[in-house]
Amino acid sequence: MNTQAVSIPESTPTSTPILQQRGFTSDNIAPASEQVIEAISRANSGQAKPYGVDPISQQVEQQLREIFECELEVMLVPTGSAANAIGLSVLTPPWGQVFCHPDSHINNDECGAPEFYTNGAKLVPVDGDDARIDPAQLAPLLQRMVGDVHSTQPAVVSITQATETGSLYSLEQIQQIGQLCSDAGVRLHMDGARFANALAALDCSPAEMTWKAGVDVLSFGATKNGTLAAEAIILFDPSLATELGYRRKRGGHLCSKMRFMSAQMQAYLAEDLWLDNARNANAMAARLAEGLRGIDGVELQGQPEANIIFCRLPQTTIEALLDQGFGFYHDRWAPGIVRLVTNFATRADEVDALINAVQTLQQRQIG
Amino acid sequence: MNTQAVSIPESTPTSTPILQQRGFTSDNIAPASEQVIEAISRANSGQAKPYGVDPISQQVEQQLREIFECELEVMLVPTGSAANAIGLSVLTPPWGQVFCHPDSHINNDECGAPEFYTNGAKLVPVDGDDARIDPAQLAPLLQRMVGDVHSTQPAVVSITQATETGSLYSLEQIQQIGQLCSDAGVRLHMDGARFANALAALDCSPAEMTWKAGVDVLSFGATKNGTLAAEAIILFDPSLATELGYRRKRGGHLCSKMRFMSAQMQAYLAEDLWLDNARNANAMAARLAEGLRGIDGVELQGQPEANIIFCRLPQTTIEALLDQGFGFYHDRWAPGIVRLVTNFATRADEVDALINAVQTLQQRQIG
Amino acid sequence: MNTQAVSIPESTPTSTPILQQRGFTSDNIAPASEQVIEAISRANSGQAKPYGVDPISQQVEQQLREIFECELEVMLVPTGSAANAIGLSVLTPPWGQVFCHPDSHINNDECGAPEFYTNGAKLVPVDGDDARIDPAQLAPLLQRMVGDVHSTQPAVVSITQATETGSLYSLEQIQQIGQLCSDAGVRLHMDGARFANALAALDCSPAEMTWKAGVDVLSFGATKNGTLAAEAIILFDPSLATELGYRRKRGGHLCSKMRFMSAQMQAYLAEDLWLDNARNANAMAARLAEGLRGIDGVELQGQPEANIIFCRLPQTTIEALLDQGFGFYHDRWAPGIVRLVTNFATRADEVDALINAVQTLQQRQIG
Amino acid sequence: MNTQAVSIPESTPTSTPILQQRGFTSDNIAPASEQVIEAISRANSGQAKPYGVDPISQQVEQQLREIFECELEVMLVPTGSAANAIGLSVLTPPWGQVFCHPDSHINNDECGAPEFYTNGAKLVPVDGDDARIDPAQLAPLLQRMVGDVHSTQPAVVSITQATETGSLYSLEQIQQIGQLCSDAGVRLHMDGARFANALAALDCSPAEMTWKAGVDVLSFGATKNGTLAAEAIILFDPSLATELGYRRKRGGHLCSKMRFMSAQMQAYLAEDLWLDNARNANAMAARLAEGLRGIDGVELQGQPEANIIFCRLPQTTIEALLDQGFGFYHDRWAPGIVRLVTNFATRADEVDALINAVQTLQQRQIG
Repeated sequence: MNTQAVSIPESTPTSTPILQQRGFTSDNIAPASEQVIEAISRANSGQAKPYGVDPISQQVEQQLREIFECELEVMLVPTGSAANAIGLSVLTPPWGQVFCHPDSHINNDECGAPEFYTNGAKLVPVDGDDARIDPAQLAPLLQRMVGDVHSTQPAVVSITQATETGSLYSLEQIQQIGQLCSDAGVRLHMDGARFANALAALDCSPAEMTWKAGVDVLSFGATKNGTLAAEAIILFDPSLATELGYRRKRGGHLCSKMRFMSAQMQAYLAEDLWLDNARNANAMAARLAEGLRGIDGVELQGQPEANIIFCRLPQTTIEALLDQGFGFYHDRWAPGIVRLVTNFATRADEVDALINAVQTLQQRQIG
Repeated sequence: MNTQAVSIPESTPTSTPILQQRGFTSDNIAPASEQVIEAISRANSGQAKPYGVDPISQQVEQQLREIFECELEVMLVPTGSAANAIGLSVLTPPWGQVFCHPDSHINNDECGAPEFYTNGAKLVPVDGDDARIDPAQLAPLLQRMVGDVHSTQPAVVSITQATETGSLYSLEQIQQIGQLCSDAGVRLHMDGARFANALAALDCSPAEMTWKAGVDVLSFGATKNGTLAAEAIILFDPSLATELGYRRKRGGHLCSKMRFMSAQMQAYLAEDLWLDNARNANAMAARLAEGLRGIDGVELQGQPEANIIFCRLPQTTIEALLDQGFGFYHDRWAPGIVRLVTNFATRADEVDALINAVQTLQQRQIG
Repeated sequence: MNTQAVSIPESTPTSTPILQQRGFTSDNIAPASEQVIEAISRANSGQAKPYGVDPISQQVEQQLREIFECELEVMLVPTGSAANAIGLSVLTPPWGQVFCHPDSHINNDECGAPEFYTNGAKLVPVDGDDARIDPAQLAPLLQRMVGDVHSTQPAVVSITQATETGSLYSLEQIQQIGQLCSDAGVRLHMDGARFANALAALDCSPAEMTWKAGVDVLSFGATKNGTLAAEAIILFDPSLATELGYRRKRGGHLCSKMRFMSAQMQAYLAEDLWLDNARNANAMAARLAEGLRGIDGVELQGQPEANIIFCRLPQTTIEALLDQGFGFYHDRWAPGIVRLVTNFATRADEVDALINAVQTLQQRQIG
Repeated sequence: MNTQAVSIPESTPTSTPILQQRGFTSDNIAPASEQVIEAISRANSGQAKPYGVDPISQQVEQQLREIFECELEVMLVPTGSAANAIGLSVLTPPWGQVFCHPDSHINNDECGAPEFYTNGAKLVPVDGDDARIDPAQLAPLLQRMVGDVHSTQPAVVSITQATETGSLYSLEQIQQIGQLCSDAGVRLHMDGARFANALAALDCSPAEMTWKAGVDVLSFGATKNGTLAAEAIILFDPSLATELGYRRKRGGHLCSKMRFMSAQMQAYLAEDLWLDNARNANAMAARLAEGLRGIDGVELQGQPEANIIFCRLPQTTIEALLDQGFGFYHDRWAPGIVRLVTNFATRADEVDALINAVQTLQQRQIG
């Protein structure tokens, strides 16, 4: 063999990424939990059956059944977009309507993945405060043009818990939407990209926040809260599992060395890691909100309930913070509106550094 | 918060998977290379920009450009099915024909992922020895019904290197198909799930085995040969990158914490790991073939060139081997035909154990 | 042959359909023009090449080129939904956005045909008065998230002329939207299900109302205005024709005995039939509006410009009219709102009968 | 209004198409039956409810129920490709396999319409003599990889009656395939583009040739045998009707002025017209076969059973016939192989003219 021809470049492994520790853009800039990395390492031993027939994958299923207190079916996929799109595709025919909030991730941030996986189902925006679907607006839509062949047909409602703005549906609100769905014969999907943050903030069990309130399919997020790339599609109606299996494979989302994805989820679920992680993210957001609230010229938007804060800052302050290396989105909403996201790894000193920076900038500006 | 409600089960982490070390079913039962795990661990430090804008991802792009000696574009995805299907989807319209061998993975083992991602393009089987497309059979098909609106249209040829039976296309054979494609104005795709095994077996450079021979898009496999879940779609025509980006996202294959997928690929490509791994797998297959060849009653099929062996064994021997805990596929082809796959982690003693077991069984049978 | 087995029932041909002549529900309850039926009969002579290679089909192409004063390409299909959906499918990738009015036919009345034919493109509603897209609302959307892989991308604007409420875009309004499209690099589609009604109402040429104002693809409707089942997809960018041909065939819309569809269109276009038909429909709508305007308790909505009128009637009057056999839609909008549609075959005495009925009912009610 | 701007060209209606009366290329070059044209003319009276709610459409449903002696559901579409593709789409999931003969129309001549409508189901060719699926080859395929998520799944068998080469499945053969389908839990579809020709040739009832033998969905062709553009999708399992309705609309195949399509079908089915037409086509094919059989140098292929003949002619004869204005396909199979298709309107003198021409040419050649 001509070894010269296949020689590879002198690449020096990059040991230190990455961003300064000042990012509040999203929870996806966080690393993974150490326990997750360790679980991957521990799983890296010997041979294992592929495609989810290994013992770790089977244990994850058992873990989730205990956590949710029911005979659910579960399939892991590497991204939240895949979890949402594939999950929705078993709930609607191509001519179905998927009701969702205009601000929802499935409507704005997945490049049409739901439309692709459903072969063209129609996402129908239903408005409401704080990125929550308003049941009063939803109710008549569930009855509109039913049975009329000229119209796409009500099929699924998709709610996000916690929402894209960090607000929460209360249990009562989920139950109310669940009842509307049940009455209309449509399905209820929950995008739980930040499921743990919501659960940690509400006084309830996973079962209460999902199937007991009428949820049929849950995108159980983990990547934003501690795994590398592992999300679970959870079916509270096990009869959907066969179809889901074909759809996952057909989408290219059935990983061969599944033990490594399952190991992430196993560690994530073990010993309350997922809840501890979420509690930290939520606590850091609360600390941040508390700190910002007292500063002149800063207006918090709504009452943060999970790990996302929206606030209004003077434009000069926004720019100065960016210059100092803080990271956040600010140009996607009304002028001056800033989104700040904490995560499981956010530390109090990082939060305080941001609070202090804002305070100093505002004092300078006002003084 | 009601902590009792969300308490999780007493799950004891599974520390020791999994199969006995006697599996020869597929290279996907192997673990990952230690260097890959270490790279993941190393990448797990601090914050990083998501979706591939991190430094590790950018270094991987640079590595691949150096390895392939050209200005390629690259996008990582977690599975080979995704790499194949999304890669094909930028090469054919929905009414296109994708010529492939009847035994090809895209034709048999992806549950129609190529049809799904291309919105219904037609896979047209073209036969040939040893799972290789026969150019003489391909040539007329590339001219058939061209421009006839009643017929799907020639669009792509997809070859697998190494093939699903472990055989190889020679450089001349790839060039010949590349020339046919070029003459007919159709594109050439290579399924390189075992690209490293092929490259290690042929005396050539990566460039020679791909774009210099006419390949437009390569599914550059890594998962079977050392990573956890990381494959690269490599575009030798960079003008396809914009479309590929939307299609990857829309398929749910754009991972947020991309640094961890890139770290796998970075370690895989660094310091010849990918080639060393492939060389071991190939050497173990050669050792296995050599050992089996001398045993009475065992017939090797073809000449193994990469890390897959097909052979014929007596049914009683097959069953006795399975009883002893050896693993392999045997019921998918003609009676008595067995497939044995080695991988980067296969050791000589494991190979020898299998050889010895066959020898003992055969002696007993014949004696 | 066992003739008894295949005997058919004693079916007496139905000679007299159908509705009373009091229908104002839609222009699709009208018959076809006599000239169209005669043309079909005339075409029913001898053999003809199929799939549009016959002389009649070629003459239709020539007719349309002269009418539109340019080198357009044309393909006939049997329905307006097909014309819209297939026409859109050559203008947008699956990840594209199709901007349309919330009240548009493509958004509400085609059961997702555009999403189906485009493989999941996203219809994005843009509001505006009188079922017309407001350019001021459209403009920022054409720039939103361009190039961001997480978002579907601006691809097409679709306007309906005349609109679903019978209003018209002025030439200046079309030009303004055309300019926005051109500036943003997106395409402009016109749903011309009532193209002739619009053209007859505006003082302009077909060219001015379409390609000179920036329209790329036109659904040229004919079925509502005199044919049985014949619509034309007109491409002002002939480079789209090849793709359109495959998409039409793939959708099952390439009729074999095309001469009969072309004969309909030929007669429709010949000797100003299409315009005369539209002028009658428009005139009857104007007569109806004029007659209703003077009646106490009747409120016309907007200023009817084509062949559709919306007005508000007391509920008792609505029910009485229905009892008398008049037909119209009334339960799809605000309470009391009624839609009245005239067509090419509507006669003055039919219009007067409706006016008189309303007048009598209102006098009784008020008196 | 600027009437000059919209003036239309001086087009003189083409009164006489079209081909010389020497075409044997396909049955789609035929005109329509006079009774069909008359029925359209008769339906062109007054107003009618659209989309199939008119009395003629309802009568067609009744006619077909009597003809097939069961409670079927029926939906009309304008083309055979639409009938096949939409019919198949209610029988298979996107990950299903559709077994069909390699020579079948759905496999070769619909530009992938079945793949499009099914969202990418896989057409799996099953060989057999005379364009008929061989049950012995089919049987094992129906059991292959069932339940394996990596493989598309057996879902439908599609047979063509009469086949694309003019052969027929006997009742016993259909029953045998029907039994295989039933045993395997897959559906049976019949492409009946030439259903009448087959029925006229077999001694059986429509029911015996379809649902009594296990057919679930029938594409009931009429356009090749006397209508302009009207085909029926017939569901022997009425529970499929709701889905079919949405799929037809979504495909753009729900015609608004349905009465005209139904009128065609009504006349076609009335007073044995469909059978008389088919009998003539079959008789003319038999006459042609009989005439050719006796000519030196002419070899008939197989035994023509419906209205299609394949024969082998010397190349010089082929070219001379084409020069004389005869039309037929000859360049799609082995050299010298010619396809001759008769239709309902073919006259004995036309057949004799062709026979005589061949005879004269052959005598000249041999002499």
